Amino acid sequence: MSRYVLPKGFLVNGTHCGIKRFNKDLGIIYSESPCKAAGVFTKNKVKAAPLLVSKEILSSGEPVHAVIVNSGNANCCTGRVGSKDAKKTINAVCQSLGLKFNNVLVSSTGVIGKRLPVDLITASLPKLVKRLSEKAVMSFAKAILTTDKKRKVETARFFIGSKEVIITGVCKGAGMIHPNMATMLCFIMTDANIDKDALKLALRRVTDDAFNNIAIDNDMSTNDTVLLLANGQADNKTIKKGTKEFELFSKSLEKVSLELCREIIRDGEGATKLINIRVKGAKTEKDAKKVARTIGDSMLVKTSVHGGDPNWGRIAASVGSSMAEGVRYKLIEIYLDGVCMFKNGKFTNPAASRVSRVYKRSTVDILVNLNAGTKSAFMYTCDLSKRYVEINAHYMT
Amino acid sequence: MSRYVLPKGFLVNGTHCGIKRFNKDLGIIYSESPCKAAGVFTKNKVKAAPLLVSKEILSSGEPVHAVIVNSGNANCCTGRVGSKDAKKTINAVCQSLGLKFNNVLVSSTGVIGKRLPVDLITASLPKLVKRLSEKAVMSFAKAILTTDKKRKVETARFFIGSKEVIITGVCKGAGMIHPNMATMLCFIMTDANIDKDALKLALRRVTDDAFNNIAIDNDMSTNDTVLLLANGQADNKTIKKGTKEFELFSKSLEKVSLELCREIIRDGEGATKLINIRVKGAKTEKDAKKVARTIGDSMLVKTSVHGGDPNWGRIAASVGSSMAEGVRYKLIEIYLDGVCMFKNGKFTNPAASRVSRVYKRSTVDILVNLNAGTKSAFMYTCDLSKRYVEINAHYMT
Repeated sequence: MSRYVLPKGFLVNGTHCGIKRFNKDLGIIYSESPCKAAGVFTKNKVKAAPLLVSKEILSSGEPVHAVIVNSGNANCCTGRVGSKDAKKTINAVCQSLGLKFNNVLVSSTGVIGKRLPVDLITASLPKLVKRLSEKAVMSFAKAILTTDKKRKVETARFFIGSKEVIITGVCKGAGMIHPNMATMLCFIMTDANIDKDALKLALRRVTDDAFNNIAIDNDMSTNDTVLLLANGQADNKTIKKGTKEFELFSKSLEKVSLELCREIIRDGEGATKLINIRVKGAKTEKDAKKVARTIGDSMLVKTSVHGGDPNWGRIAASVGSSMAEGVRYKLIEIYLDGVCMFKNGKFTNPAASRVSRVYKRSTVDILVNLNAGTKSAFMYTCDLSKRYVEINAHYMT
Repeated sequence: MSRYVLPKGFLVNGTHCGIKRFNKDLGIIYSESPCKAAGVFTKNKVKAAPLLVSKEILSSGEPVHAVIVNSGNANCCTGRVGSKDAKKTINAVCQSLGLKFNNVLVSSTGVIGKRLPVDLITASLPKLVKRLSEKAVMSFAKAILTTDKKRKVETARFFIGSKEVIITGVCKGAGMIHPNMATMLCFIMTDANIDKDALKLALRRVTDDAFNNIAIDNDMSTNDTVLLLANGQADNKTIKKGTKEFELFSKSLEKVSLELCREIIRDGEGATKLINIRVKGAKTEKDAKKVARTIGDSMLVKTSVHGGDPNWGRIAASVGSSMAEGVRYKLIEIYLDGVCMFKNGKFTNPAASRVSRVYKRSTVDILVNLNAGTKSAFMYTCDLSKRYVEINAHYMT
């Protein structure tokens, strides 16, 4: 596991507190030195209580020292006690680590509509905190999972001057959870010394460029959260907006985030293939995104990829139905795994030997050229399988 | 089959011309007396050639006497020859029936990207036309199907003064077609004597109130078409906008259309249940529709209904993610088959005996009250089954 290093000054841990029957369900991130923090949250109007509480704490501007995360219970749709329970959890962490309320963030994922068993969490906090370690990253990664099959951790290392900077992200993905949101939680730690505005901008960018371009299905979670914490221990010259150091930081952050996104998709429920959709030649970026998302949301496209069926007609119809402004039917080109299937308004009738290779690998490429401009976009999604239906049809029964 | 009467003066027929290997694939509607006609077409920017040709003919304002429809080939994404082939088909009909070009509409559904075999159509036209009959409605209904399992015909009869008026609709639905659009074709005939503006308004209304509120999946076809033909043979006093006769006509048209919509949904690929989604208490109608559609498009909602899993959390999340303006989390109420599951921001914890009855019948009711206004909307959709994936994963291979 040496591939995954934590940035300097971060300690983490994960344990089993009893919300789930067997697996780890409580994780913590701790930084002795104060962290600048930035966060992005679901746009769903139904928001989980811990998300609202953390959002408020973030807006206080106080330094963050710890994040407490439980899995197995989303603390969502729990009425008024929801935020009380989230705050109780924070207070317990404060006691254990000698912190103030506004130094701690809280995050939950799991069942919706059941009250959070705060007692289980507080009872397990002493042992969780006692074994905080820079080596426990896989333990933390495990503790935040719901139905994901794999732990998801990525690290990037780079130099600013003579100082090495580390960015490590841990996330849980779009295994649907009980009762089944594609909740994504992502915690990114860095020892970079970075200006707060720059940190916020970097997160906003990477949200647009990575996290907002993935989908398992067309549902939006009540708990989606990405947190970025920077404790400055790399001791580099402060990274500011508009500098080449900022670009370097952003690029590494993007690299970590994109890899986490791919891991989320590959581990999507029932997923057997990662679909890499790219749209180019769009008039505007908005157009490009619209087209990419419409293709990625199409159940017909997703099932055809699942079946290894090079069905360009479904993609043409998705492009047309995207309602993107600059789409002109006769200019559209569609490439599946590099084979041009549609051009000049009609099927290109490529050699059967070439078509037979389409959609056969574990990563599938769909490229649409709108030939209407210079903007582009991408989207990662997965295929739609019978297993997806199986998993999601029988959850509460 | 006496339930399905054609309006006076309409003759129809269906036959096998050879586009499909075995089943009927060519249908015709004919009215000796001239029809006023109105049409609505897919908003997809990728539009099939026959649709574009028919749209142009409709805009000429000439009376319509016939509609020729083939199944098995959509004549879509066929390049420039597409519209030539559509026009050839029309010309052949003109010859057979002694009509002018602008008197005939054309419609196609089936495989995308393959050239339409016009010769097969023209060769079969003589026998098709020879056996035109007021009794062949089920034969016509059969000829326009693709992968639908059932023929879809509905009739309404009512009186205007002493004159009986008949409205009969025939449609084909959302069995996905090769390569798999949920093409809906709907042909509605009436002997009503109705003003052209009134006819257009009635169709526009029923499109909003019925056809635009159904979905099998989130894909939009390249060939969707609804045509409404009125030949005036009922000899009633001309129906005009803003009269009670117009309301009567509209109501009957809606009744026929809604029933056809339900038949389409029930016959959706892999569908085992009809989901009747109603949203009330919305601030605006747009809001209500947004919420209804987001719930109806949710793969998680559709799979939970399939599994008989009363998963209100997925519905709450859909409501929240709909981005409708007037949604306030704490005001939302969710009823599944009449059982209130969510109110005051939390799970209502109803008796297990009541919950066990939810989602068990072949028609499932989801009611969301936003408690934010007086507007409402509905949507019909179907569940998402393994059979859907099966059918759509392996089509061309």
